[in-house]
Amino acid sequence: MSTVTKALELLNYFSSETPELGLSEFARAAARDKATVYRHLSALEKSGFIEKNPRTSHYRLGPAVLPLSRLREATVPRAVSVKQPLAILAQTTGETAHASLLQGAKLVTLARQTSQAHSTGVVVNEKTLPLHASGSGLAVLAFSGDTLRQQSYAPLARFTEHTVTTPQDLEERLTNTRKTGFGIANQTFETGVHGIGAPVFDDSGTVAGAIAVAAPAYRINARLDHTIKSQLIIAARSITAHWGGRVPTKLDDVWDEHSKAASEIGANE
Amino acid sequence: MSTVTKALELLNYFSSETPELGLSEFARAAARDKATVYRHLSALEKSGFIEKNPRTSHYRLGPAVLPLSRLREATVPRAVSVKQPLAILAQTTGETAHASLLQGAKLVTLARQTSQAHSTGVVVNEKTLPLHASGSGLAVLAFSGDTLRQQSYAPLARFTEHTVTTPQDLEERLTNTRKTGFGIANQTFETGVHGIGAPVFDDSGTVAGAIAVAAPAYRINARLDHTIKSQLIIAARSITAHWGGRVPTKLDDVWDEHSKAASEIGANE
Repeated sequence: MSTVTKALELLNYFSSETPELGLSEFARAAARDKATVYRHLSALEKSGFIEKNPRTSHYRLGPAVLPLSRLREATVPRAVSVKQPLAILAQTTGETAHASLLQGAKLVTLARQTSQAHSTGVVVNEKTLPLHASGSGLAVLAFSGDTLRQQSYAPLARFTEHTVTTPQDLEERLTNTRKTGFGIANQTFETGVHGIGAPVFDDSGTVAGAIAVAAPAYRINARLDHTIKSQLIIAARSITAHWGGRVPTKLDDVWDEHSKAASEIGANE
Repeated sequence: MSTVTKALELLNYFSSETPELGLSEFARAAARDKATVYRHLSALEKSGFIEKNPRTSHYRLGPAVLPLSRLREATVPRAVSVKQPLAILAQTTGETAHASLLQGAKLVTLARQTSQAHSTGVVVNEKTLPLHASGSGLAVLAFSGDTLRQQSYAPLARFTEHTVTTPQDLEERLTNTRKTGFGIANQTFETGVHGIGAPVFDDSGTVAGAIAVAAPAYRINARLDHTIKSQLIIAARSITAHWGGRVPTKLDDVWDEHSKAASEIGANE
C-alpha cells in the first residue's frame, strides 16, 4: 500500500461515534507504529484534511474536506450516477428499472429505464411512490427509522385489492423485507404489475432511496425473480458506493446468501 | 513537501470550472513529471477520492469525499466554529460581536458575544437581521448575487430616520461596501447603535453570512473604527477558512489595503 493510500485510510477511522481520535488511537486502529502514523497525520493536517481540536488536542476532520463533497455532487449528481446501473438492470432483466430518492417522507422518482426485450413492459409514470404499496417503498421503510414508518401509517391508501391497509399487515411485510433484503409489491400498487425493490444508502448512513424492477405480473417466474434480485443486489451496491454510502452489514450478509442461492439455482437449471 | 501533501494538493485543481482533469493537465498544473503525478493519482483513485469518468477517461472527484464533509459538519458545526473568533472580536474591540448565517433570503443570527470592557454595550436580540439596514446585511448583499439583492428591494422597511429606503440609496451603500470591504450601519437599524459587518464565505463559493461588531454610536471614533475593522478582517478570514470557504481575491486585496492603512494609523498615534 502506498504512503498516500495509508494516510488517507486514517480518515476512515473518523465516524459519528468517534469524531475525534488521538495519535495512540490511530496507531492502535491502523496497527502501525506511532512515528509513521504521526507523519501521516501531520501531512493530512498540513493539507487541512484534519485539524487538532485546541481543547482536547485530538484530531478531527478539517475544513479542507468541506468543498470536496459539494464539488463531487455537482460533478456526478445522484440522478447521473444511477443511469448506468439502471441501464444494466433493464438490459439484464428485460424489464423496467427505476430509481427513487427519499425526500422527507416522500419517495420521489429519480430516473427510469425501460427495456426493449419484450413488446410489453411496465411504464413508470408516478412522480412519487407510496411507501406502503410499492417495492421501493417497502425497501425504504424496512431499513429506515421508526419516525418514517410511523408517518407512513397514517393513511394506508388502498390502490388495488392486494394493497396492505393495516399497520399489522405492513409490519409483517417489513419484517419479510428485512429478512429477504427486498421489498415485494405483487400487484399492491397497480393490478398486473409486480415490483421488486432494494434499498440504497448514502453517506448519511441511513437509507436514501431505492432501486426497483417492475414487470408484468404474468411474466414473473422463479428464474426471472432470481435474475431480478441478483441484478438488484449488484445495482444497489453500485449506487450506494457512488453515493458515498455503505450497505449495513446485516443486509450485506442477507444479500450474500441470496447470491449464493441464486447461483445454485442457475447451476441446477 | 511530503508525498501525502503533494497528492492531496492535486485535489485542489478540481473546481466547478474544471470538474474533470486528465493526467497531462494535472502534471502541467502541478509542474511535476507525469510519472510522479500518475503515482499520486493512482493512490487517490485507490482510496476512492478520485475516479475516472468512464466516458472521458479523465479524473473527477470520487465517492469517498462524500461522507467527510457531513462528518466534519457534525463534528464542528458552523455555530461552534464562530465561537472563538467572536470571543476574540469582543475582547479586542470591547464591543458586542455577532455572527449570522444567510438562510434563503433571511440573515439569521448564529451566535453573539458581549464584552465586559464597558458598563454599556449593545445587546443583539434580533433573530433575523434586515439586509438593507444592518452592517451584516449590507456585507452579505454587497457580495452576493443579483437575485438576493432584488428580493431585498421589495419593502425597504424604515427602522430609524437614517434607514436607507430607496433602491438607489441602497445601491450606493452596496457600492461603498464593496469598495471598503465593510457594511456600515450607522444608526440605520437602531438609533444610537453603530454596526460594522464583514462577509463570510463558505465552500459554496458564495457569501454564507456575516460577522459584525455593534457599538454605541457615541463610542465610535477613528481609532475604534480601525480596531473593529482590523479585527473583523481577521475574524472573517478565520471563519471563512473554518467553513471551507475562500475570500474572493478582490475583497482580499481591499482588506489587505485596510490592514496596511490601519497599521500606519496605529503607528502615527
